[in-house]
Amino acid sequence: MTEPVNGGAGRPGGSGEAPAGSAPAGRRIGLSHGDGGLATRRLVEEVFLSRFRHPALHALGDSAVLDWEASRGGRLAFTTDAFVVEPAFFPGGDIGRLAVCGTVNDLAVAGASPWLISAAFVLEEGLPVSELESIADSMASAAEEAGVSLVAGDTKVVQHGRGDGCYITTGGVGVIPPGLELGPHLIRPGDLILINGGLGEHGLAVLSRRPGLAFDTPVKSDCAPLNGLIRALLQASRVRFMRDPTRGGVATVLLEAAAASGLPLLLEEEALPVSPAVRAGVEVLGLDPLYLANEGKVVAVVPASEADAALSALRGHPLGREACVIGRVLEAGEAPDGISRGARGRTGGVLLLRTALGPVRRLSAFSGEPLPRIC
Amino acid sequence: MTEPVNGGAGRPGGSGEAPAGSAPAGRRIGLSHGDGGLATRRLVEEVFLSRFRHPALHALGDSAVLDWEASRGGRLAFTTDAFVVEPAFFPGGDIGRLAVCGTVNDLAVAGASPWLISAAFVLEEGLPVSELESIADSMASAAEEAGVSLVAGDTKVVQHGRGDGCYITTGGVGVIPPGLELGPHLIRPGDLILINGGLGEHGLAVLSRRPGLAFDTPVKSDCAPLNGLIRALLQASRVRFMRDPTRGGVATVLLEAAAASGLPLLLEEEALPVSPAVRAGVEVLGLDPLYLANEGKVVAVVPASEADAALSALRGHPLGREACVIGRVLEAGEAPDGISRGARGRTGGVLLLRTALGPVRRLSAFSGEPLPRIC
Repeated sequence: MTEPVNGGAGRPGGSGEAPAGSAPAGRRIGLSHGDGGLATRRLVEEVFLSRFRHPALHALGDSAVLDWEASRGGRLAFTTDAFVVEPAFFPGGDIGRLAVCGTVNDLAVAGASPWLISAAFVLEEGLPVSELESIADSMASAAEEAGVSLVAGDTKVVQHGRGDGCYITTGGVGVIPPGLELGPHLIRPGDLILINGGLGEHGLAVLSRRPGLAFDTPVKSDCAPLNGLIRALLQASRVRFMRDPTRGGVATVLLEAAAASGLPLLLEEEALPVSPAVRAGVEVLGLDPLYLANEGKVVAVVPASEADAALSALRGHPLGREACVIGRVLEAGEAPDGISRGARGRTGGVLLLRTALGPVRRLSAFSGEPLPRIC
Repeated sequence: MTEPVNGGAGRPGGSGEAPAGSAPAGRRIGLSHGDGGLATRRLVEEVFLSRFRHPALHALGDSAVLDWEASRGGRLAFTTDAFVVEPAFFPGGDIGRLAVCGTVNDLAVAGASPWLISAAFVLEEGLPVSELESIADSMASAAEEAGVSLVAGDTKVVQHGRGDGCYITTGGVGVIPPGLELGPHLIRPGDLILINGGLGEHGLAVLSRRPGLAFDTPVKSDCAPLNGLIRALLQASRVRFMRDPTRGGVATVLLEAAAASGLPLLLEEEALPVSPAVRAGVEVLGLDPLYLANEGKVVAVVPASEADAALSALRGHPLGREACVIGRVLEAGEAPDGISRGARGRTGGVLLLRTALGPVRRLSAFSGEPLPRIC
């Protein structure tokens, strides 16, 4: 791998030059793109550095280095998510947009202003470089929408058959302003549960393109960065608790909130925003939109006295036009109308659903019905 | 997926309960471990929360939230790396130890005190849970050695044949003390190039266990967290530039440094520390140890006047006993003895090697000879 000054010095990269850097048509990812040599460097420059312009990324150091100017006495939020969505391209987005939005939203629901993101790629040998470029384009657009900078990355390549095109893991750092506290422990009886729009769009859009399951639906993924919407919400209203209901959906997020708060939460089925198209899709598939993934929704618990202000703020943002109240927090031990006598003693930290027909059911964590690789 | 209060309320998780949480013998990762439901939760609790104890992780929020007490006017370092090493278990370590050490070291060579790490897993359906537990054990040990806290994580599962057991992406946040500046732009003629020990141990150890390539060697990976060693070095000596020579080895790191500094760097082949066992292995395989991956080595460029202090500091640490000088920085345009006449005009920003026999060769970035999945 060394090269004498006599003879070969003018021949960059030696004889086994990888295709990266040559004509773009039909190029595919090869194992050499992951070996840390010339091909890796060229792929990084062509696909990533051309799209992400932060100087801390372009320094290509082992770590991105940044002045901590954003701190101002706040706290740090730090998150990571792996994205393996199948298929990688779906109505309303792709794995690149999803990866950036997912990490931005995880920071935003923690009350943080998203600041920096990282992205690490596990690419499968044979992936068309054009697909990677599309994914990188989506990431750059989503990062710009969210106002975050991608400052660190890594690229690895695995053999054909040991991956599935492209897996992306994003990390994120954000800053929580001083004095902002959020968490399920702050939830109080009488609080209202809000959401900024319809359920299940991401999950249904991805499923509609699954090999073997493909069906016609106009539903698109709701995948979007929520930090602007959440900033507006936090400026308008006190918020007790927020989560983005991704994998496992609204029910999973609220089950965790109920358990952590020790209080019963009651959802009203008739209040749940589910579009006719999603309704049609879930009926075909026998799925419950309460458990379907969303990637552009936030569930927020707010004091009842602040709900109007919160709803106004949400509805004033393009991503919150259909914001509504979907439930409320009960007193510990409170038995809502319609709940069966046998369940009355069991209402601490549970999630209840008043069905459209009146009876109140208890919701539980799903299992045994996996929808893998929805994000 | 909802469950009536009458009848099924006492049956946690419904009928399709995943194996996580049941008897441990022979359990394997299933798709339900990645669906965000009960099985995911149980896997996270059993495998990860039992081993990583930071309260910010146990909160299981969307982001870990931390007081920014470590700042004190310094700068932030942020890094990510994907690990796809094949095989996942190799002499001297495994993918878990590698993932933690790799990210700790990327922070440390940036001059940062590693503080927080994240870990996201892409697991292949069918992975024995016991393997994941071994990997998590290694991560916990390495994190303890390094004094960092794992505070954020994610777990996804892909179908059998779409992954390869376990891929891990780690992220890291560290703090660079005020006044510490490092970088190839600080490199000056006359500076010396140091390393803390022998070359190529990680690369050779992994290759020795490759299916189809397996051969007998006593070489073990050098995989180790370097932050303690680097802290000692920075206390003892000014340092211009540091990198950990992982994928692509010492040559790749110094090629980048030469290019960024605009100065020729000259390595002395006879000074390169290569153990007899590594020497024997690379001769069998026809590899050059200068391009083999290391996971417990740091290459540092220091002013010549500080080299003795730097070497003493390195040798005083268990990971630096064999520290030595391997080369020096030349003047721009300087032509060392032995270099061919034709190459004399080409010595800006290049990496040169004085071979054991005397002639000076120019080293170039490798390509076309991939050693994929070495880390």
